[in-house]
Amino acid sequence: MTELRYDPLNSDWVVIAIERAMRPENFSKKTIEEKKVKKCPFCINNESMTPPEVYALRTVKNRANSPGWKIRVVPNLYPAFKITQEANKNRELGNAYKSSLGIGLHEVIIHSPDHEKHLARLDIDQIKLILNTYILRYKSAAKYRPVEYISIIINHGQDAGASLEHPHSQLFAIPLIPEKIKREILNLKEYKDNFDQCMICYLSQFEIEKEERLIREWERFIVIAPYASKSPFEIMIIPKKHDSDLTLLNDKDISELAEVLKDLLAKLEDILDNPPYNLYIHNAPVKNKNLQYHWYIILRPKLTIPAGFEMSTNVNINVMKPEDSAKFLR
Amino acid sequence: MTELRYDPLNSDWVVIAIERAMRPENFSKKTIEEKKVKKCPFCINNESMTPPEVYALRTVKNRANSPGWKIRVVPNLYPAFKITQEANKNRELGNAYKSSLGIGLHEVIIHSPDHEKHLARLDIDQIKLILNTYILRYKSAAKYRPVEYISIIINHGQDAGASLEHPHSQLFAIPLIPEKIKREILNLKEYKDNFDQCMICYLSQFEIEKEERLIREWERFIVIAPYASKSPFEIMIIPKKHDSDLTLLNDKDISELAEVLKDLLAKLEDILDNPPYNLYIHNAPVKNKNLQYHWYIILRPKLTIPAGFEMSTNVNINVMKPEDSAKFLR
Repeated sequence: MTELRYDPLNSDWVVIAIERAMRPENFSKKTIEEKKVKKCPFCINNESMTPPEVYALRTVKNRANSPGWKIRVVPNLYPAFKITQEANKNRELGNAYKSSLGIGLHEVIIHSPDHEKHLARLDIDQIKLILNTYILRYKSAAKYRPVEYISIIINHGQDAGASLEHPHSQLFAIPLIPEKIKREILNLKEYKDNFDQCMICYLSQFEIEKEERLIREWERFIVIAPYASKSPFEIMIIPKKHDSDLTLLNDKDISELAEVLKDLLAKLEDILDNPPYNLYIHNAPVKNKNLQYHWYIILRPKLTIPAGFEMSTNVNINVMKPEDSAKFLR
Repeated sequence: MTELRYDPLNSDWVVIAIERAMRPENFSKKTIEEKKVKKCPFCINNESMTPPEVYALRTVKNRANSPGWKIRVVPNLYPAFKITQEANKNRELGNAYKSSLGIGLHEVIIHSPDHEKHLARLDIDQIKLILNTYILRYKSAAKYRPVEYISIIINHGQDAGASLEHPHSQLFAIPLIPEKIKREILNLKEYKDNFDQCMICYLSQFEIEKEERLIREWERFIVIAPYASKSPFEIMIIPKKHDSDLTLLNDKDISELAEVLKDLLAKLEDILDNPPYNLYIHNAPVKNKNLQYHWYIILRPKLTIPAGFEMSTNVNINVMKPEDSAKFLR
C-alpha cells in the first residue's frame, strides 16, 4: 500500500508511492531513455502487460484482456491509490505528523487502440466514448466507501509528465478532499452568501459580455482564457448548466463537449506544434453533491517550467496576457 | 509594469509579466534552442548586457558595470516586480476579479564571474559572500515601503527553470504575503497555542531523536529529509536558532551554512550526476517580525514532473520514501 502523509507546516498531503525499490540511478536521464525502448503495454496484443482490465468496450465478441476493444480501462500498474481490505488507521507520529493508507483507485483509461492518434486526432465518436467512460468509471469509483474525491486528468507528452506515449487518461479516486478543492468550495460559498449567485455562473456571463478573454461561446459550454491564468494559453471550459460534476451530462452535452475538446486541441496543435499539455477536471467531492459546486475543465499547455519562486510562494509568473492567449485561440 | 491578478476561485495570485510581445512561436523548442547560442550576459566583459548593477564587490578599484567584480547584483532584465512612482491602485473588475501593480524588486545575484562553477564547486569563501549578499540585498529590499515579503531562490539547470546557465540566485521583493506563507504562519500559531512551543523547533528535536530522516546534525543547523517530502531527495535545512529570517545570522552561522550547502550540493552532484534543482528560503513577512516564524531552506532536485493530478489537487506523488532519501544523502 502507498502511504498518505500530511505536512503539518504547510497543510499539504503527499502520497509516498514506492512501487519499486528506487535508487538514485533510476533518476538519471540515461535510465529514463533506456526504459523507453520497451514495447507499449497499451497497444493491441499487449493486453497481458497491464493488470486485468476493469472495463472495456469490444466490437468483436472476445474474452477480457484480449484484442478487439475500442476503449479499455485498467488499474495503474504502479497505483498511487488501491482497494484494500485493511482498515484505514489514521496514524500519528509525535505531536505533529500524521498519515493514513493510500486507499482508493487509480485507473488508466486507454483512449483507443491507436498508439499515434492523440485526442486532437481522434474522431468525435471516439472522444464521446472516452467522455462516457469517464462518467462510467467515476460513478463506479464513487461507490467505493472510502472515496471522498475523484480526479480525472490527462498528461500528454513527456514534458507534461506522461510516462507512456500511448494516449490515455487517468482517474484517481482518493480518500480525502484536497485542500485546493476545499478552498474553492469555501470561496464559492462566500460568494454565494455575498451575491446570492454562483461565482462561476456569474463569471461565465461576465466573460461573455466582456469578450476579451472569451475564446468561444458554444450552446452548452463557454471557453475562456482565465483572468488569472497561471501560464500562457491556459484554457477553462465551463458548462453553462450549473452542475456539481460531469456525471450529470446528458448525451447532447457530451456530444458538444467532444466537439469543444477536439476544436481546442486541434488549435493548440496548430499554433503550438503539438505541445505537451495537462488537462484536469474539477468536480465536487463525491459525498457533498449539495455543495453548489460548479464543475469545470482546465487545459494547460506545458510551455514553461514553474521554478523556485512559484514553489516557494505559489505565486505564478505568466509571460502572456490571457487576453492575448484568447486572441490566438479564437 | 507587470500586473498582479487574483483568482477569486482558488485564491491564487499570478504575475502577468509581458516583458516582450510573446507570440506562439516563442514557445517552440526551436526558438528556445536558438536563444541559447547568444553570449552570456553574466560573464566578465559583458556587464553592459545587464541593467546597471545595484551592488558589486570588486577586488580591483574599477568603476561600476565594468570587470573586476567578485559578486554582482543586477535588476532582472525582464523584472516580474519593479520600483515605481505610480500609486498602487487596487483595481476591481466586475464582482470577483481584482488586480494591482507588480511593485517591488526582482534582482539577480550573479554568484561569481565563473560561468562553469556552480554552487557545489565554489569555495567556501565565495559561498559565504553569496549568503552575505543575500542578507545585504534582503535588508535593502525590506526598506522599500510597498514590500511585504521577500523570496530568495536558486534555479539550477534548464529542467529546473533556469533560463541562463551562468550560476545565479534571484531575489523577489513582492507587495503581498503569499497564501502559502500565511498558511504556515497560521499553522505555527495554532501549534504554539496548543503545545506552547514552535512547531519547527519541536520537529528539529524530534527528527534528531528519531534519526531515520536525519541527514546530518551540525552545530547550528539540522538537515533532514522532510516527513512529507513532495519529491525524491527533498532536503530541509533548519537553523537551530529560532529566528524569523536569515538576516539574523552571525558570521559563524554563515560560515557553517556555507559548509552545509556545499556539503549537500556536492552529495547531490555525486549521487545524482549534477541534477537540476530548486532552492528556496522561507522567511517571515518583512513587517511581521514578531510572528514567531522560524525561517528555513528547501533544496529540491528536479527529478520528476508534477503533472495533472498534482496541479489539480496539490497532492504530490513521491516515488521515494524520505527515509530512503536520507539514507542516500547521509
